Amino acid sequence: MGNCCEAICNVRKNTYMRVSLPAVCFVWQIAMVILFGVFIRYDDESDASRWRDFKREQNFTSDIENDFYFRYPSFQDVHVMIFVGFGFLMTFLKRYSFGAVGFNFLIAAFGLQWALLMQGWFHALDPATGKISIGVESLINADFCCAASLIAYGALLGKVSPVQLLVVTLFGVTLFAVEEFIILDLLHCRDAGGSMVIHCFGGYYGLAISWVLYRPKLNLSKRLNGSVYHSDVFAMIGTLFLWMFWPSFNSAITDHGDGQHRTAINTYIALASSVLTSVAISSLSQKRGKLDMVHIQNATLAGGVAMGTAAEFMIMPYGALIVGFLTGIISTFGYLFITPFLEKYLKLQDTCGVHNLHAVPGMLGGFTGAIVAAAATEAVYGEEGLRATFDFEGEFENRSVGTQGGFQAAGTCVSIAFGLVGGAIVGLILRIPIWGDPADDNCFEDEVYWEVPEEDEEEGIPPVLEYNNHMVNKHQDLSESNFSVEQN
Amino acid sequence: MGNCCEAICNVRKNTYMRVSLPAVCFVWQIAMVILFGVFIRYDDESDASRWRDFKREQNFTSDIENDFYFRYPSFQDVHVMIFVGFGFLMTFLKRYSFGAVGFNFLIAAFGLQWALLMQGWFHALDPATGKISIGVESLINADFCCAASLIAYGALLGKVSPVQLLVVTLFGVTLFAVEEFIILDLLHCRDAGGSMVIHCFGGYYGLAISWVLYRPKLNLSKRLNGSVYHSDVFAMIGTLFLWMFWPSFNSAITDHGDGQHRTAINTYIALASSVLTSVAISSLSQKRGKLDMVHIQNATLAGGVAMGTAAEFMIMPYGALIVGFLTGIISTFGYLFITPFLEKYLKLQDTCGVHNLHAVPGMLGGFTGAIVAAAATEAVYGEEGLRATFDFEGEFENRSVGTQGGFQAAGTCVSIAFGLVGGAIVGLILRIPIWGDPADDNCFEDEVYWEVPEEDEEEGIPPVLEYNNHMVNKHQDLSESNFSVEQN
Amino acid sequence: MGNCCEAICNVRKNTYMRVSLPAVCFVWQIAMVILFGVFIRYDDESDASRWRDFKREQNFTSDIENDFYFRYPSFQDVHVMIFVGFGFLMTFLKRYSFGAVGFNFLIAAFGLQWALLMQGWFHALDPATGKISIGVESLINADFCCAASLIAYGALLGKVSPVQLLVVTLFGVTLFAVEEFIILDLLHCRDAGGSMVIHCFGGYYGLAISWVLYRPKLNLSKRLNGSVYHSDVFAMIGTLFLWMFWPSFNSAITDHGDGQHRTAINTYIALASSVLTSVAISSLSQKRGKLDMVHIQNATLAGGVAMGTAAEFMIMPYGALIVGFLTGIISTFGYLFITPFLEKYLKLQDTCGVHNLHAVPGMLGGFTGAIVAAAATEAVYGEEGLRATFDFEGEFENRSVGTQGGFQAAGTCVSIAFGLVGGAIVGLILRIPIWGDPADDNCFEDEVYWEVPEEDEEEGIPPVLEYNNHMVNKHQDLSESNFSVEQN
Repeated sequence: MGNCCEAICNVRKNTYMRVSLPAVCFVWQIAMVILFGVFIRYDDESDASRWRDFKREQNFTSDIENDFYFRYPSFQDVHVMIFVGFGFLMTFLKRYSFGAVGFNFLIAAFGLQWALLMQGWFHALDPATGKISIGVESLINADFCCAASLIAYGALLGKVSPVQLLVVTLFGVTLFAVEEFIILDLLHCRDAGGSMVIHCFGGYYGLAISWVLYRPKLNLSKRLNGSVYHSDVFAMIGTLFLWMFWPSFNSAITDHGDGQHRTAINTYIALASSVLTSVAISSLSQKRGKLDMVHIQNATLAGGVAMGTAAEFMIMPYGALIVGFLTGIISTFGYLFITPFLEKYLKLQDTCGVHNLHAVPGMLGGFTGAIVAAAATEAVYGEEGLRATFDFEGEFENRSVGTQGGFQAAGTCVSIAFGLVGGAIVGLILRIPIWGDPADDNCFEDEVYWEVPEEDEEEGIPPVLEYNNHMVNKHQDLSESNFSVEQN
Repeated sequence: MGNCCEAICNVRKNTYMRVSLPAVCFVWQIAMVILFGVFIRYDDESDASRWRDFKREQNFTSDIENDFYFRYPSFQDVHVMIFVGFGFLMTFLKRYSFGAVGFNFLIAAFGLQWALLMQGWFHALDPATGKISIGVESLINADFCCAASLIAYGALLGKVSPVQLLVVTLFGVTLFAVEEFIILDLLHCRDAGGSMVIHCFGGYYGLAISWVLYRPKLNLSKRLNGSVYHSDVFAMIGTLFLWMFWPSFNSAITDHGDGQHRTAINTYIALASSVLTSVAISSLSQKRGKLDMVHIQNATLAGGVAMGTAAEFMIMPYGALIVGFLTGIISTFGYLFITPFLEKYLKLQDTCGVHNLHAVPGMLGGFTGAIVAAAATEAVYGEEGLRATFDFEGEFENRSVGTQGGFQAAGTCVSIAFGLVGGAIVGLILRIPIWGDPADDNCFEDEVYWEVPEEDEEEGIPPVLEYNNHMVNKHQDLSESNFSVEQN
Repeated sequence: MGNCCEAICNVRKNTYMRVSLPAVCFVWQIAMVILFGVFIRYDDESDASRWRDFKREQNFTSDIENDFYFRYPSFQDVHVMIFVGFGFLMTFLKRYSFGAVGFNFLIAAFGLQWALLMQGWFHALDPATGKISIGVESLINADFCCAASLIAYGALLGKVSPVQLLVVTLFGVTLFAVEEFIILDLLHCRDAGGSMVIHCFGGYYGLAISWVLYRPKLNLSKRLNGSVYHSDVFAMIGTLFLWMFWPSFNSAITDHGDGQHRTAINTYIALASSVLTSVAISSLSQKRGKLDMVHIQNATLAGGVAMGTAAEFMIMPYGALIVGFLTGIISTFGYLFITPFLEKYLKLQDTCGVHNLHAVPGMLGGFTGAIVAAAATEAVYGEEGLRATFDFEGEFENRSVGTQGGFQAAGTCVSIAFGLVGGAIVGLILRIPIWGDPADDNCFEDEVYWEVPEEDEEEGIPPVLEYNNHMVNKHQDLSESNFSVEQN
């Protein structure tokens, strides 16, 4: 420890970003300008020359029937989840709040541009003109697409450089667009809130990357891998905005009318149930029954993840309660037992526990969707309702609900496979020693990539104390009694 | 003080939650699954089989006429107020932020499920099928119902156990549903933003409980009953989200069209006025005219509370300004003089001052509503407008505005009575020594119910310093001059 | 330094607010009640007696066509930007978070009332009745009007008294209403998101005031003119809510239908681009490529400011990307080079760097709007679309797009002129020594105008340490080695 080791670490690990980070940002952004120029145009409902004609064609009686008014409030809620929700959820570490909220911001702003293109090529390319049409639903989908990479960031938090994160995002968005095309278009699954395509994929993608990037000596940074009082309060901002707006997340791109309405109700109910069971297991697990902030910050959200597929189906309010009930329990157990197990036996370091919040609840959500789809009946949905809910139209007009259930389950497996295989490959790319990741004793530390304000004037005690042991020793020499207090 | 006392306290007060809290959560959540299974179904606008028929019956030309699009943006604003607004408003205490935001989360998630049932039985039970139909308006009402119990929590903050809070919520939601039924259905009052049914009831309910639970030795925890710099900033997050979204709170369930529009305008105006008069009185009250964060965090909101009933009426913009003007003054005076008076002479400990923010402004809002209703004329409202605003239909077709005013005033009295009597009874239940409440010298302290991160690594000074005086004494021995600074 | 100087400063600078602040608030608020009583009424869509007739006149088929449902979600987003966005963005200073968020609150609540009147007189006064009609669009415009004064506050942060801020706001709102009338009505410019009327005006207004109020000895407060770790995290709350909701800001008052839709898309895209280029320049500018929170908190928003005028035009998605690209770079360069230059050579102290975030990007946004307007063609907009987008109706029916571009550019110049001249005059008014501004060594310090909680119990180290050097000296005497650490 001390300066000597620090010097060695700096030789071994070069965290110099001054060339690579600006270069990637500029090259990327210029590429985006060119590609947007070639491909991206407004859709019929946002284009000044086409909207009025489109309105007449559709027999709209009012401008309020523009898709904007159906989806924009939900879009803004999703936007808050992506930037404030995910960003602040990760601020719980004592000295990585800048990285949590700042790199989250960078990833999402970088990824959403690529997502507009990738998703556009797969879903909204007009073969006649070669142009992609975008509207408010495209913006929601771009945000969704970023969510998968942000989930992956959760597993990597504090252990990678910003350039690595941009690589994770570049491949993450690309893989997302492909698996989404396979699952939603080829398999014709329904997955409005993305249990499969977002959470399950994103979770396993991050875990696979983290597994390949395993750091055997990560406990050198153990002192920083924890929270302080106020960082836990900041993280609750993220938790609550995610929790509150999850009904908007799941319902944002469902069918107009009953679809959005029902999805929001189901998600609201499932989330409430998760809170109760997370609290119960958290309290059960601790001596004296104290609650653990890690569980409250994370496991309470599992019901929202797990309802991502089934929320638009007629799962019934009690069905939503049951889903939230079980996933709250499973997620909390994950934080208690599975994350430590994975780290010890599978060499898998998962900073935020995305395994318990996204990977497993997402997978369960996918299978829940399969079961609920397979159990659908015309008695419950009505004939029109069944067709609309599962989009049994065109070439899928005669698909049975049983077949649909099978495809939903298959879709979940596709998302897991994409996550694991894609993540492993991206992990190998990230092991090339050119990306500027931090040394093992320098993880979870904002100083590496950020100008951090000095705190000496405010606290009266230099921040350096916590990092340099030899300084603490000087302090000890000065006042033995004071030191004894510090060790308490 | 010190370890000896602590040992005694632990004998006297057992805060062990490991059995009771999980037990209550699980039993409750299982009961909810069963009751939801028996009773709760989607309403006509969220059910896949009924929405299309309903749309035809109502001659809707577009899916945008689904009630979801009228109310969902307001619902999400209300949701933010309940979870972030109330939660963060209470984080002002230096060491009770986890409890503030975490127990707020637990109460609301617990209460909203019970509220869906209780309010459903009273308002949305189809006698033919025995089922309750829920839609987006039900979600808003469930959130409203939780608000009353969260207000009560404000009076109890830091002095009760989580299990006690669940008891408070269970009875709070039940009492709420009954008084709401009496006031809105039997007395046919209008109270869209809940001055009476939410704020007045919730405030007096919490005060009555706190009065019964009076702790004569609470000053043993005095060191923790205050804020630190950053906890006051966190509390401003709560204040601002409450303040900004109050127009949505009051307008969320008012009539479509002019009703929601006018209610939002009136609330917006009243709140602006409250800010100015709260600042004025706060500055007037302090030596050198400095502002007090307690007033800025709370009294600025009084205008929103007091407009809960009258905002949907034609109170006129200047009327809204006057209401905000007066309640801002009254609320700030309450924090300055009435809360200390209540504590000293009435043995009433009100941690957040809900008396000044909810009970009194809510009561005044109820009477304001009565006066404005009684003064309504066809000249101002139009014949159709008057009927729609006061819902003079069916058996109430011939009610005069004067009578309506009388009933509004009676409704306010009903809410006070329910709050005081219900609160006193619940308080007595909570005095049974089985609930695990904290000792008198351990109030306002997260350590009791939460795993709190240790701060020694970050601060260089152990957190134990602030709790154990004998440690401070050691420090004093070391450096007398330093100590003299600390006393400054 | 020390007590002696402090005594002198207190003689020289009297920060006693106990008379002036309450007096201004009360007089103002009473004036508002009277003026609202004389002038302000509900508009056709929020008035109980007129809405139903209006609905029939307009052939609305549903209440959902009330303007409320077109604009209320955007209004609430704008509201969050004004109170949480601007408020928390300014909390970055280590000891001025109360002032940042609290005075922001006061300014906005004060200003929006005056804005409803001023904008009403200019835009919504019915000459027949002498009444102003207000609706949801008026509330948005009132919030916009306050934004200009809040931007000015950014330049003055920490250096003025609350009474001075009320004077700044009173004149700011007045000047705003006049320049807005000239630009939007007389010159018939389009400026939905206010690049010109809000950001450019507000920025130069604040800069001119700050220039007149130049403090040569401001470096006496240098120790407080910086951030600490958690204050930077708080500021990110402001940044993110501004960033996320900027599409709502720009689209809030654009045309129903394609107008709002397209504006939101363009703003979303431009903002993403700003993030990448801000990060790139920030990293390029620092040794080792570390990122600077100042740039991340501010320059990332430049794309939103710069799209305020052009976002409703057919600028095309790639055009929006280019605007964000360039303004992100320019804004970051501004923080790196121009702010220090202005301070050193032009005697201009700009606490938050509003020059780089509002003045310059706003001006560029105005000129961008001029260019995009001049380049408009019927091929791109369609004949109807062109007329609707530029509002070529009535006396402006035959205006060409080239002429429109010229007027847009002229409008930008008008806003700069109003900002500079108005700001200089207001600055002179504020130099009258009666307003209670802080002494040069007491700037950026909440203690001056707020009751600040004592932190000694929590931290174990008295907060006074950081302010009084002689105390630090005592501490030094005690432990020289400790002191050497502090100087590190």
